[in-house]
Parts: sequence; C-alpha cells; structure tokens
Amino acid sequence: EDRTLDSSSLDPYAKDPPRHPVLRVNSQKPFNAEPPTEILTDNFITPSAFFFKRNHLPVPQVDPSTYQLKIQGLPGGTVSLSLEDLKSRFPKYIVTATLQCAGNRRSEMNQVKQVKGLNWGIAAISNATWAGPRLRDVLLYAGYKSGGKAQHVHFEGLDKDVTGTSYGASIPLGKALSEEGDVILAYEMNGEDLPADHGFPVRVVVPGIVGARNVKWLDKIVLSEVESSSHWQQNDYKGFSPGTDWDTVDFKSAPAIQELPVQSAITWPAEGAVLDHSLGEVTVKGYAWSGGGREIVRVDVSLDGGKTWQVAKLQGREGEALDLSPPPGRAWAWKLWELSAPLPSGTQELEIICKAVDSSYNVQPDSMAPIWNLRGVLSNAWHRVKVKISEH
Amino acid sequence: EDRTLDSSSLDPYAKDPPRHPVLRVNSQKPFNAEPPTEILTDNFITPSAFFFKRNHLPVPQVDPSTYQLKIQGLPGGTVSLSLEDLKSRFPKYIVTATLQCAGNRRSEMNQVKQVKGLNWGIAAISNATWAGPRLRDVLLYAGYKSGGKAQHVHFEGLDKDVTGTSYGASIPLGKALSEEGDVILAYEMNGEDLPADHGFPVRVVVPGIVGARNVKWLDKIVLSEVESSSHWQQNDYKGFSPGTDWDTVDFKSAPAIQELPVQSAITWPAEGAVLDHSLGEVTVKGYAWSGGGREIVRVDVSLDGGKTWQVAKLQGREGEALDLSPPPGRAWAWKLWELSAPLPSGTQELEIICKAVDSSYNVQPDSMAPIWNLRGVLSNAWHRVKVKISEH
Ligand SMILES: [Mo]
Ligand SMILES: [Mo]
Repeated sequence: EDRTLDSSSLDPYAKDPPRHPVLRVNSQKPFNAEPPTEILTDNFITPSAFFFKRNHLPVPQVDPSTYQLKIQGLPGGTVSLSLEDLKSRFPKYIVTATLQCAGNRRSEMNQVKQVKGLNWGIAAISNATWAGPRLRDVLLYAGYKSGGKAQHVHFEGLDKDVTGTSYGASIPLGKALSEEGDVILAYEMNGEDLPADHGFPVRVVVPGIVGARNVKWLDKIVLSEVESSSHWQQNDYKGFSPGTDWDTVDFKSAPAIQELPVQSAITWPAEGAVLDHSLGEVTVKGYAWSGGGREIVRVDVSLDGGKTWQVAKLQGREGEALDLSPPPGRAWAWKLWELSAPLPSGTQELEIICKAVDSSYNVQPDSMAPIWNLRGVLSNAWHRVKVKISEH
Repeated sequence: EDRTLDSSSLDPYAKDPPRHPVLRVNSQKPFNAEPPTEILTDNFITPSAFFFKRNHLPVPQVDPSTYQLKIQGLPGGTVSLSLEDLKSRFPKYIVTATLQCAGNRRSEMNQVKQVKGLNWGIAAISNATWAGPRLRDVLLYAGYKSGGKAQHVHFEGLDKDVTGTSYGASIPLGKALSEEGDVILAYEMNGEDLPADHGFPVRVVVPGIVGARNVKWLDKIVLSEVESSSHWQQNDYKGFSPGTDWDTVDFKSAPAIQELPVQSAITWPAEGAVLDHSLGEVTVKGYAWSGGGREIVRVDVSLDGGKTWQVAKLQGREGEALDLSPPPGRAWAWKLWELSAPLPSGTQELEIICKAVDSSYNVQPDSMAPIWNLRGVLSNAWHRVKVKISEH
C-alpha cells in the first residue's frame, strides 16, 4: 500500500500529551517547562498541570493493562510486577515531596557566564503528594537479602532516544532500603493516576534527592555493585569548581548529584515590579527547601540588598501546625514563607533578598560567581529581586 | 580540728589535669584551649594532647573501679553498667570522628560585631580515633524496645556547677539507634584510656554532631519524649538571624544545633606571613569537614581574593586510597587538603581563600556578616588569609 507519511510519524514527540498553556516553555522537544513564578507558591501542593515538566526524551505511550515492571540483579532472577500487582500486593504509602531540577535557577548562573543547559528560571521546583508502594517493600518481596554486594539501585525509563537508549539513573541502595528513606514507586500524583508528563503509569519518587534520579515511566529496577552507567549519572548532573571548563573537566572527579543543597527564592514581588508607596508596607513571598530531608528552619529576608535582615514567617501544609515537624531527616516538602514589613522610606528602589537555613544549619552562599559551574547546576545563591517604589 | 584552708580546696578547678603548654588558652577556668594553627593539620589523627579542649565546668575526678553508668527511661527501670561491663559485654567499635565546637572560628564573627562566647580561632576542631561499645547495643541490652514514646536520648555528665547542676545535652533517638549512626560510648581515644580533659572514663561520641552533644564524663543516659532541658540544649548552641539581638531573641524559635554545616579553613600559611618570592610557588594547607556524615568532595582555593579558584588535593587517612570513600552519610572524619600553585606575579600581597563542598553539594557562604548571630556559633564563611610576598 502506498501511504503518505505525515509529519507526526516522523516526529518522536508527536504523541506527547497536551500541556497547560500558562507554562513557560524552555524546550518543546523534549518538553521542558515551568509554571509562572507568580503562581508557583499559590498552593502548598502544586496542581499537577502546573508542576514543572522536565523530560529528557519523548513521552512514551504505555498501556497500563500490559505494563510490567522488571526487577533485576536479585539472586532469584528477574521479577516482573504488573500495575495491578503494585497496587494490590503492597501497602500504599503517601508521601508529600518536593522535586527540584538540578538546573533550577540556571538563568542566574547564565548571567555570570554562559553555561550549557536549559535556561530555567526559579520555578523548576514543585511540591506534590505521591502514592504507591515503598521501594523497600517491593525489593524485599522480590527477594532482596542483606549481605550481598549490591550498593546501588538503577532505574531505567521507558523513554528512549533514537538509538534506543533509555533514560537512566541510580541511587545508593541504603536510601532505597531505609525505613526512613520513604522512596516509593508512585502510581498516583495528587490523588490521581500519574499524568503522562510525570511518568504514567509508574515513576520512582526519591524524596530529598535531585529530580533527575526520580525516573519516570519506570521500566526496570536493577540492583548493582556500581552506579548507573547512564550519561546522566556519569557525565551530567555533577558539580564542578568555577575554574573548571569543558576542556579540563573530568567527570569522574565529582560525585553524581544526589541530595541537593539548601535553596530558596522570592516568588513575589516580581523583578521590576512597582510597589505602591501609599500602601506603606510590602509583602514578600517565596519558597524554601533543602535536600536529604533537612527541614527549613529559617528564612531571612533583606529589603536593603543584604545590609539588614528580617525573619520570614514559615508556612507548612494548609491547616497543619508548624510545630508538628516531620521526624528528623524526613522533611521532604518545601516550606512556603512570607514577610510583611514597612516600606523603607527615602528610597525609590529596593533590592529584596532571601536566604534559607536548614536543620543542619547549612546556608545559601551570597553570590553566584563562586559556585558557577560549566553545567549550570546547583544554582542556590541568595535570590535577589529589584523593585521600584511608586512616587507621589 | 583547726586546719588552714588552702586555696585548692576552695577552687573547684584545682584538680584539673596538667595540659600541654603549647595550647592557646581561651579560658583557664573552665579550661578551653585550641592547638596552634600551624600544627593542627600536621596529622590526620590529632594527638590527644593537642586535641582542642572545651570544658564547661571543672574536670570531675572519677574512680574507674567504682564508676557506674546509669541508663534510665526504659520499661525495666534503671540499668547500671560498670566500666568493666562496657568493656566486656559489648563488641568494641572503633570510629574515627572529627569533633568541632559550635564556636569554632568565633573570632572572625567577633570582627563583624562583638558576640558572647569564647574567642575561638580556627582550631576548635580536631580528629581522633574513638573506641567503645555502640550506644545502640547498650540501649538494646538495657531493654530498649521500639514502639515506645521516647524520641530523644539525654546525656548527663559528672561535671557539675556550684549549684550541683550537671552538664547535659540530648540527641534524637533515631541517631542513637541507627546502625549507620556509629554513636559509641568511648572509653578510648587514639588507642589509650580517655584523657581526663576528654571525659575519662567514658564519653559519648556522636559522629557528625556538634561537639556540645558529645557529653564527657558520662554519668547518665535517659530516654525521653522531650529534648534535654539543660541550659546548653535550650538556651545556648542555637543559631539565629543576624537581626536578632539579646533583647529580641526567643530561644524556643530555633532548633538545638545537631549536625553542623560544611566547614573549612586554611592552616598554612598564617595570616601576615611573608612568602619568599624566589620560591616561585606557594603551598596552601588546611582542613575541611561537614556534619551529618556528609563527605567533603571538593575544596576550592583562591589566591586572588575570590576572583579565580583552583581545586585543592584532598587527603584522607595516611596510606588510604581516597577512592575508598566511606559509605554514603558516614564520612565522620575531616579531610586535610593542600594546593601548590605558582605565585602570582606583579603583586606584593595575596588574599588566600578556601571554601569546601560536601556530598550534598552544600557550600560555605561568602561572608560572615550575613550569618552573624548573637552567640557566635556556626561561623563557617569562606576562610581568608592575607600574606605578603617578599621583594628582591
Ligand atoms: Mo533535572
Ligand atoms: Mo562547643
């Protein structure tokens, strides 16, 4: 038969799902987008449609009725589990966890010196409720016994490049097995089936760990003595010194990013906003989060470019008392924060800055240039926003 | 009987042990001292005589033959263990761990604005090998069962103030029970009985946690639903915003310091040193360490006040390959580091800076003023040393 090839059959991205038009798109193919800053912190739980999308490859089409998750590297050989198995054979855990792209706030690093990567603003971070079995329970079910040589858990996605290579990553086995690690094989996001862009039908959620290891459209789990050999584990998503360039970089010299450092940013007011002098005060809003389950314990805000600092009010989940802290090392969700303060007099411009402190009292560095790195990851210096004050 | 009171019977510090004369004394009573910077990093393991001393109270005189460690708060009531019990009933664990005073580098914070506390230099940090039973094993032996309400483990010392109040602190129970926490009841330091200044006959060593919780001359261990009520847990050893002063501080608003943030300092050359221009190069040495078992993965050194950076060579224990990293989250010991680089030409002064990165990619902040706090703790900004270059 003679058929006309339509463009969609040549375009591996032709079957990508529809997306919300309000998203700010950094790349169409693969699809990478973040919500507008102004709405990012409207809700403690980010609606799935607004949750930042970070795809490395085309979104795979997965039939949930034939889906099989393979678990390999265990003494008894490969174990396969259907979606129904994952839903029925294990307790369902619900974990509220913030995911952040390693490249969040890369655009600010680009202002120091051009880096390689998508030009993310401050919204490549979002918070959702995820549900599914614990990876720990699934590994034990599949026959995991302690005392073996495995040190890492690999995840392979169903998303593939033109050569047939899947997206892949790994995490330390200890995180996967820990009762306090809260790693789950999520089949729900915010109470519904995972959306296509977020890994339908199953993704791994590794709380406290960089987004890149939270592999979507999960195809295979492999226990191994060594880390994933994937490009993204070995030759990407690592931090380097500002003096290291593409001619001198040795990717073997740096560890793969797992836990992320303490982070915060101002979502309101926006850069360049004009504040009404007659209101007499300004309200500053933002988010703060740290990797490794380290809770945010304080956010400092400056209205004068860092000369003086005030302490913001932290907000947890709606209706939840803030003194109900999660157990130590299990603060997986961000904290939204707010500061209302009198508008300083005698100035027509404010430089607003925020910086957060986590439960290990780690802080954000003052400036971007000294943490600049060729890949533009780990961009967590103080966030600065300049605004004007209207005159009368 | 009529006896002449000699001064020693009135002075609770009269029976303090002799100390090495090279120590730099910040306070005689209680004794607080650090080794000279120039020798701090001569050895990966700090000789006990040079290990920084941080006493809050007089050194108690303890008879090891009658010593009894009490464990309370367990269902079966108080359990007492002699020193011999601790040595004979439990496996002996050896842990190499760095301890750091919360006030290390306070003198640099004092240069921003005066704080309250001992004026420590950069050497209130040292590294030793400690040996004794795991606290976990001792608690299980004493009858600990999971499922109870206890969330904290209190430690009380035999050192007391004039009112009879003991030094005390607590840590989260999870750290004490974790197989990966490596908390031990040490009766040996560097292969010998604990020295009097370091807690003879038994202290707790809580790797990755601020020195203040590593209680010496251990008298009592108490499991509790709440943190220690001691002054040092509740109203000291906490971090605050630079805007918080003694009139506004609310100690309840900040968590007790447990894990410390990433730290590093330059031990060679010394501030004000004159480098010989004809040598053509400079060697910079120092230490780096982070709390919570986070390994140091990189140290950056600048010779030009932070404009450009070079990567230092990290050194672990003598004769140990650096690629033999400890398991994730169990890097308890510091790393010494060194950088040899050509002396920049055309300048008679260098501002040398170091900054470290840990395995969560947390970094040190650029400057001290924005992390200044009224108690002068957590002083971990970049360390800066100015040196001169000799002319010919
Ligand atoms: Mo990412
Ligand atoms: Mo301390």
